[in-house]
Amino acid sequence: MCGIVGYTGTDTAKDILLAGLKRLEYRGYDSAGVALERTDPAGETHLDVIRRVGKVAGLESELEHVDDESTCGIGHTRWATHGRPSVANAHPHACCGGNIAVVHNGIIENFAELRDELTARGHVFGSETDTEVLAHLVEEAYAQTHELVAAVRKACECVVGAYGLAAVCADEPGVIAVARKDSPIVIGRGEHGSYVASDIIALIDATRDVVVLEDGQFARLAPEGITYTDAQGELIEPEVTHIDWDIDMAEKGGYPDFMLKEICEQPRVVRDTLVGRLAPSGELDIDELGLTFEELDLIDRVYVIACGTSYHAGLVAKNLIEGWARIPCEVEAASEFRYRNPIITPSTLVVAVSQSGETADTLAAIRDARIKGAKVFGITNVVGSPVARESDGVIYTKANKEIAVASTKSFIGQIVSLTLLAMLLGQVKGKLTTGQVRMLFRELGDTAAQIQYILDSQREAVHEAALACKDAPSALFVGRGMGAAISYEGALKLKEVSYLHAEAYAAGEMKHGPIALIDPGFPVIAVTTKSPVYDKVVSNLKECEARGAKIIALATEGDEDIKQIADHVIYIPPVRDAFSAITASVPLQLLARDVAVMRGCDVDQPRNLAKSVTVE
Amino acid sequence: MCGIVGYTGTDTAKDILLAGLKRLEYRGYDSAGVALERTDPAGETHLDVIRRVGKVAGLESELEHVDDESTCGIGHTRWATHGRPSVANAHPHACCGGNIAVVHNGIIENFAELRDELTARGHVFGSETDTEVLAHLVEEAYAQTHELVAAVRKACECVVGAYGLAAVCADEPGVIAVARKDSPIVIGRGEHGSYVASDIIALIDATRDVVVLEDGQFARLAPEGITYTDAQGELIEPEVTHIDWDIDMAEKGGYPDFMLKEICEQPRVVRDTLVGRLAPSGELDIDELGLTFEELDLIDRVYVIACGTSYHAGLVAKNLIEGWARIPCEVEAASEFRYRNPIITPSTLVVAVSQSGETADTLAAIRDARIKGAKVFGITNVVGSPVARESDGVIYTKANKEIAVASTKSFIGQIVSLTLLAMLLGQVKGKLTTGQVRMLFRELGDTAAQIQYILDSQREAVHEAALACKDAPSALFVGRGMGAAISYEGALKLKEVSYLHAEAYAAGEMKHGPIALIDPGFPVIAVTTKSPVYDKVVSNLKECEARGAKIIALATEGDEDIKQIADHVIYIPPVRDAFSAITASVPLQLLARDVAVMRGCDVDQPRNLAKSVTVE
Repeated sequence: MCGIVGYTGTDTAKDILLAGLKRLEYRGYDSAGVALERTDPAGETHLDVIRRVGKVAGLESELEHVDDESTCGIGHTRWATHGRPSVANAHPHACCGGNIAVVHNGIIENFAELRDELTARGHVFGSETDTEVLAHLVEEAYAQTHELVAAVRKACECVVGAYGLAAVCADEPGVIAVARKDSPIVIGRGEHGSYVASDIIALIDATRDVVVLEDGQFARLAPEGITYTDAQGELIEPEVTHIDWDIDMAEKGGYPDFMLKEICEQPRVVRDTLVGRLAPSGELDIDELGLTFEELDLIDRVYVIACGTSYHAGLVAKNLIEGWARIPCEVEAASEFRYRNPIITPSTLVVAVSQSGETADTLAAIRDARIKGAKVFGITNVVGSPVARESDGVIYTKANKEIAVASTKSFIGQIVSLTLLAMLLGQVKGKLTTGQVRMLFRELGDTAAQIQYILDSQREAVHEAALACKDAPSALFVGRGMGAAISYEGALKLKEVSYLHAEAYAAGEMKHGPIALIDPGFPVIAVTTKSPVYDKVVSNLKECEARGAKIIALATEGDEDIKQIADHVIYIPPVRDAFSAITASVPLQLLARDVAVMRGCDVDQPRNLAKSVTVE
Repeated sequence: MCGIVGYTGTDTAKDILLAGLKRLEYRGYDSAGVALERTDPAGETHLDVIRRVGKVAGLESELEHVDDESTCGIGHTRWATHGRPSVANAHPHACCGGNIAVVHNGIIENFAELRDELTARGHVFGSETDTEVLAHLVEEAYAQTHELVAAVRKACECVVGAYGLAAVCADEPGVIAVARKDSPIVIGRGEHGSYVASDIIALIDATRDVVVLEDGQFARLAPEGITYTDAQGELIEPEVTHIDWDIDMAEKGGYPDFMLKEICEQPRVVRDTLVGRLAPSGELDIDELGLTFEELDLIDRVYVIACGTSYHAGLVAKNLIEGWARIPCEVEAASEFRYRNPIITPSTLVVAVSQSGETADTLAAIRDARIKGAKVFGITNVVGSPVARESDGVIYTKANKEIAVASTKSFIGQIVSLTLLAMLLGQVKGKLTTGQVRMLFRELGDTAAQIQYILDSQREAVHEAALACKDAPSALFVGRGMGAAISYEGALKLKEVSYLHAEAYAAGEMKHGPIALIDPGFPVIAVTTKSPVYDKVVSNLKECEARGAKIIALATEGDEDIKQIADHVIYIPPVRDAFSAITASVPLQLLARDVAVMRGCDVDQPRNLAKSVTVE
């Protein structure tokens, strides 16, 4: 998520904006910028737009040369999702006339269409971003309304997508217009002026009484006060919330740790990763594809190369790619792949999955594979990262900056991205019809709401399950098919954050050795969601139960029978087996996090681990 | 291993032979038989050869109808290695004239050649066994020598291979001739006669003072006494050993448990599995191949399907098949494979690996694969087992009956068999020259001596390592490439017999999660044998060491540097990386066994596990 700040009042705007941006910086950044109102000696107001790639500190030294007179401005830190990190792509974006500037979070889904229309009407674009269309739309509207909030309201009517935005206009000095839909905006009134930000943390030094703007609401900030209006322009009286969080809590959005915060962000990650991916024609639209459909059609073998959690996303992908596209797919740890002279031909597609896009082994594997003539496709969370740069094509996971060391939301983003790729391969290979793709895409989108439902309804059940296994010396996770892939990730997550030694097995393998571990009270966490192998998993579980295992089952809502063998049941909504990894992984993330908290571990920064592994 | 018994004296021979055979029965059987001398009313001596498929009890009821007069005979229980279990293939085997009968353990390597020669000279064969040539050879020799031991000595001069054998001849009543090379024979003198057997346990009721016959020695048993001769026929005075084992110890050949006994049998398993596999032309000779070279040449994809330990043999095979034959090879748990609609075409080779040959999931996977048109090749320890019957071709692992539930020697047999298959595929695909195959085959054979060297020299080092990890709550096994495959099996073995939760990881994956488990004293067992990835593994280990892990390293002899990071080092002789799984697995088997003993576990019959898993 990018960060927005805005201030209008009697103090020095640049200092307030910089302080706010620094507060937001922990969430990742690749560039930052501000637009400041400046009044010239003739009394004329202009906008100075100053942007820098890199840390906020870079912007700060740039602003040292700017005088302190401006008392109104907006600022932004960017975490690239559309267009690579560059000065041109950094916010704020100005209109052609330079008198209007906009900062924006979210994704404008119809931006390509809007840009074409605006270009046809003579607008000139300076960036690759979706945001810039807003600046031009507001510019056109302002020519009619001569009032900034009204112009912003009019611009928003043209837009499909999500936005939290703030705009300033040189012709209306001291005024900031704010709008929101599906992207957070908070507004506050301090002693010395009015404040807006995308996150409470950027406001917290100025005020503790904030208005959380709702979808479809607009605000007009002026030095002397703030007015709120609805989509029709009618004045409204918003509710004021008092914040008693400290800075640490505020960074975590009120959650006790980043891991939980990021787990809870996953519905958004699903939605964002899917935005704009299905063309009205029913064709999947992956703009960073980098490979023609003809090239994809030649693919006869897929390697998914990754490490750790990303590797487990690969296990999910294998099921989908083989199932939908009928192309043999192998998943391999990058550190193994690169040292074993794997069989690669020009018709091999290597899919590299890396949250950071800079995982050393994955990167080296890509390079080797390309030398051998493979096509390479990247799945990463970081725009412009080495994995993205060195791949023929890329899908970005749109998880935004992930702070907890143990991956959660980027894992879900990876699975969604890989699912898109599998659907695309299925479509290209003629194994999936447009109708099937459309149906799958819709169901895939539905998982966002299903995750939310799990987050809302299963916290207590997860908590009980965590209590049941927190003191165990070790644990097993089991499942079959997609459930096995889910189990591997569940076990890794628990190991990573709670240091409880958990191992995963395909349930059918239990009898071939691991079941020897089972003694009374040994925790077995089982994925028993409804699928063609449900009965088989249950019968494997009965063998564990007979030996006294404490069974925690992830089951499909409505499955009452499972309670006969399970000590604890966590329910997930009914979902197509192909998508079950997306939903069923969520309670396992929560379980790992809860056990870690109970065991007194630092969930966000587990011992011995680093967020991104840039050495072998 | 098959079992031999023989008796000549004053008691009822059939009772003594049956008692001996029953003692041997624990080691597996598929058929049993005896040859008894019978004197007819005219004073003429004949041989009655009575054989039955199945348990000794079946033979026993057959023998109820035979009178008790015979006081000289030989008996055998068979565990098929050459030729399927049938009455015709059961021992004893008689010569054409019916007056000579032979029982035999071991493998006659040049039996095909000998059989052709004997057939050309008019002999008629009644079985598919290698043993039968011995009966005919003795018959020919006896026509010249008129003395049984001399005839046996002469027959042995023609034979290449291993044998422990006993022969009787109707023309020399009361005499049993015995010979041995590379296959155990023990002889004893009791109160009522002379006894011979392939194992002390069959003798122990009659006498505690035995002669362990040495290679190249012969014995002549008569009711009144025993004489020993060497290869030249000179009389010798053998050493007598007093046995104070009880029955339980005797069954285990003096070892405290079957697992250790079977670990120690592995040099023989390597040798037996390789016997006769390389034709003088340098072509690999797999007589149960069942697929033509043309069919094999069409193979473009290999699936190895197995469960548990056999699955880990598959991981080793993947490296070899991809490395030598450059055919993509995937290893999959049978329980997963069969339920996920895998991609199979007529050019897919499915290799099914199962010790028992009756593993339910593996068998079902074979059937599914064949329906889909795949070629199926079996690797099993049981001749005529369902996996053997339902495969197009088969390689038998020649491990003989494995009694300990946790597989050791059959695992080594599986790897050797799969190595042969990989070499064959490499040869068929033109990727390995005859010269290379010959060299690899020789080195593969050398692993028998290398295993023996490890067994002789590293027991103490393993014991120390076992002491170091016996009290840990859990452990990690790590390695890269072949070392990763070895690690998976090492961890499973430890889990199975000691219930210590051990998990294996490709070492490069440690930083991506599992290293969070490491705290001071946490045991990490690492395969750090010399290989192209040696340095990489060592650097992964350093990260573990830095966090206080207790490191047990499996290193190549001569590697002194490893002692700088490892707390315990177990050495294995230098070996080609491709064959390192064969040698390096042995100390890990010993480690698992020692830890289990230290933790007071029943190593041969671990809780919750069964030897052969014939249900899903």
